[in-house]
Amino acid sequence: MNIITCVAPVNIAVIKYWGKRDEKLLLPLNDSISATLSVQQMHAKTTVMASPGFKEDKLWLNGKEETVHNQRLQNCLQEIRRRAKQNEDDKVNGVSNWYAHICSENNFPTAAGLASSAAGYACLVYALAQLYNVTGDISGIARQGSGSACRSLYGGFVRWHQGSACDGSDSIATQLAPHSHWPEMRILVLVVSDKRKKVSSSSGMQNSVKTSELLKYRVSHCVPKRTEAIIKAIISKDFDTFADITMKDSNQFHAVCLDTFPPNVYMNDTSHAIVNLIHAYNSASGKTKVAYTFDAGPNACLYLLEHEVPKLVSVICQIFPPENEGVQYLQGIPVEKQAVSQEFIASIGMEPQQRGLLKYLIHTEVGPGPQILSEPHHHLLTEAGLPKVLV
Amino acid sequence: MNIITCVAPVNIAVIKYWGKRDEKLLLPLNDSISATLSVQQMHAKTTVMASPGFKEDKLWLNGKEETVHNQRLQNCLQEIRRRAKQNEDDKVNGVSNWYAHICSENNFPTAAGLASSAAGYACLVYALAQLYNVTGDISGIARQGSGSACRSLYGGFVRWHQGSACDGSDSIATQLAPHSHWPEMRILVLVVSDKRKKVSSSSGMQNSVKTSELLKYRVSHCVPKRTEAIIKAIISKDFDTFADITMKDSNQFHAVCLDTFPPNVYMNDTSHAIVNLIHAYNSASGKTKVAYTFDAGPNACLYLLEHEVPKLVSVICQIFPPENEGVQYLQGIPVEKQAVSQEFIASIGMEPQQRGLLKYLIHTEVGPGPQILSEPHHHLLTEAGLPKVLV
Repeated sequence: MNIITCVAPVNIAVIKYWGKRDEKLLLPLNDSISATLSVQQMHAKTTVMASPGFKEDKLWLNGKEETVHNQRLQNCLQEIRRRAKQNEDDKVNGVSNWYAHICSENNFPTAAGLASSAAGYACLVYALAQLYNVTGDISGIARQGSGSACRSLYGGFVRWHQGSACDGSDSIATQLAPHSHWPEMRILVLVVSDKRKKVSSSSGMQNSVKTSELLKYRVSHCVPKRTEAIIKAIISKDFDTFADITMKDSNQFHAVCLDTFPPNVYMNDTSHAIVNLIHAYNSASGKTKVAYTFDAGPNACLYLLEHEVPKLVSVICQIFPPENEGVQYLQGIPVEKQAVSQEFIASIGMEPQQRGLLKYLIHTEVGPGPQILSEPHHHLLTEAGLPKVLV
Repeated sequence: MNIITCVAPVNIAVIKYWGKRDEKLLLPLNDSISATLSVQQMHAKTTVMASPGFKEDKLWLNGKEETVHNQRLQNCLQEIRRRAKQNEDDKVNGVSNWYAHICSENNFPTAAGLASSAAGYACLVYALAQLYNVTGDISGIARQGSGSACRSLYGGFVRWHQGSACDGSDSIATQLAPHSHWPEMRILVLVVSDKRKKVSSSSGMQNSVKTSELLKYRVSHCVPKRTEAIIKAIISKDFDTFADITMKDSNQFHAVCLDTFPPNVYMNDTSHAIVNLIHAYNSASGKTKVAYTFDAGPNACLYLLEHEVPKLVSVICQIFPPENEGVQYLQGIPVEKQAVSQEFIASIGMEPQQRGLLKYLIHTEVGPGPQILSEPHHHLLTEAGLPKVLV
């Protein structure tokens, strides 16, 4: 088998990764923790193929050929091949000496700003590891493609250890708990309309390390305490503490971005209106029912338990009405309709916003790690090693 | 003379005050530094009158009667009267035993969110001190009305010392340099359209002290270094350093607000678009020509030197066009029209925003402290002690 197709999940951090101590090896300044989302709703899909007939490595992303001479891609390819060569099997077959064709796509809009590179690199490294029979931890390889990609190699709740070794060998991901541990956990992604230019998270975090004094304190004093506390909350399924830390860490990450010079602003007025809604919703509920978290973009990821989903979705649809009735506003896992009392809406105390501030909602859950798709029709490459679909 | 009318200025901090160590005495967690704006463009105006015929203390704010049973107002009245009683002159006349009528107004919209309480309390305390012949430092009294009011009692560049005494006696304002020291300094206030509910700065900072871990670090590590550095920059008229620290401290203050739980968000998308414009303008100019700073609201205060005003105003009018041509968009000190090259505009690289994001601009300068208006027509109270104008 010289062709492999895999899917890999998106992960959403609850303790944020922001700041590298090594730009080349992508070693972080702090531990981070995430949940891995189900591949049913969102995933990267990658086909890799190796052949003695290929003249060079080639790459197609979302139907377009891209250069392979990209340092991060090269880091992954070289490291996978180095590991393959340690392999008895490879010494016989020499597959690691063959060039590879790589074809990858996301089933969600890249523009949605949903950490597509993490899923993409996790998928690439997982697929290459299968192709070249590389065993053992590969999260440290994915990390060299895109830092947080290492977390997408495991399902459930995952910790990326900052590590201390200079070569990065201990900066890897481990699973804290499988997705079956907390089966009630749900995630609602609110895709926010935005027209601004995006500052890439890579250059954004580089600038934060250079200029933010608050980052130093966050990394050395705040994150270690939070990491220990949220691990306990995950293990004991203590939603209150989990939600509290998740929201505070998201806010602190964006605070550090604002303390960067020039400031990096990823949240917009709609993002902040969502924050206000969630605080008002929790307060009207008399306890913490929902947590928000925002990555390097305006979209919100909400964590909540299954039984709360119908009510929250109903409230969101009232406060953030869709642009028009034609759009498929709620995507992903179907949600039962639930009428919410006017009293509850009134106690939230927030007027409906103008239409179309949100593009759509994706309802998903915590899921397992990358998976192999073994049926031939899943391959994105033909037998000749060319993309089945080009844009 | 048992009637006094004064005007007092607004001040705009460049090192921000955020967080109290004593809620009752209004003692801050850190030193702060501001420039005092000219009373020509913006001021609070207050008439105070004392009479043996008055039956009680009375207060009118912007033409409406308000209660005097407000802790902060009482702090100021009681302290002024206590100090007056130490006075030989008062022992003879006993003016401090008479009730006072107080009438105050701002010449700028309170809704503009321009620290009206600082100018208001500075004006009140200055006028009462005149009326009751209180001499010596009165900034510590104004501080008990509204913390930053103490800075409005001096002109030019002012430092509010956090102090260390439990009774707050050393938490007073002192002048760093008079307004004549740096006569080229100009301030442009950009009044931003906003419909959100405002979190009062008083409860906002209380919540920051309670919940923000980053605030502790800001107060103990960042502010002391910045304070020393910006004082040097003011004394040596080093605009580059002054501007750099001003922007960083504004950003850090808003970062701490975001790190508060629930977060306090005072800047909106328009505020951040202004930040982007100023960074792009400085970068296109090849050096730092303008600094922004934001208080607990969405409005921007820009610091710049006189010679740069026509060019910056022209650029702002292009990037942030007024709602319609009818509005008087530029208020305050007149500005010469200046054509800006299309090359410069292009190098800023920012598209004109939708109309009406800014309500108007106020062009002003650094000015002296409170002043007495001695002509009778300036009084806001009639000889009978009632407001000349009621709303």
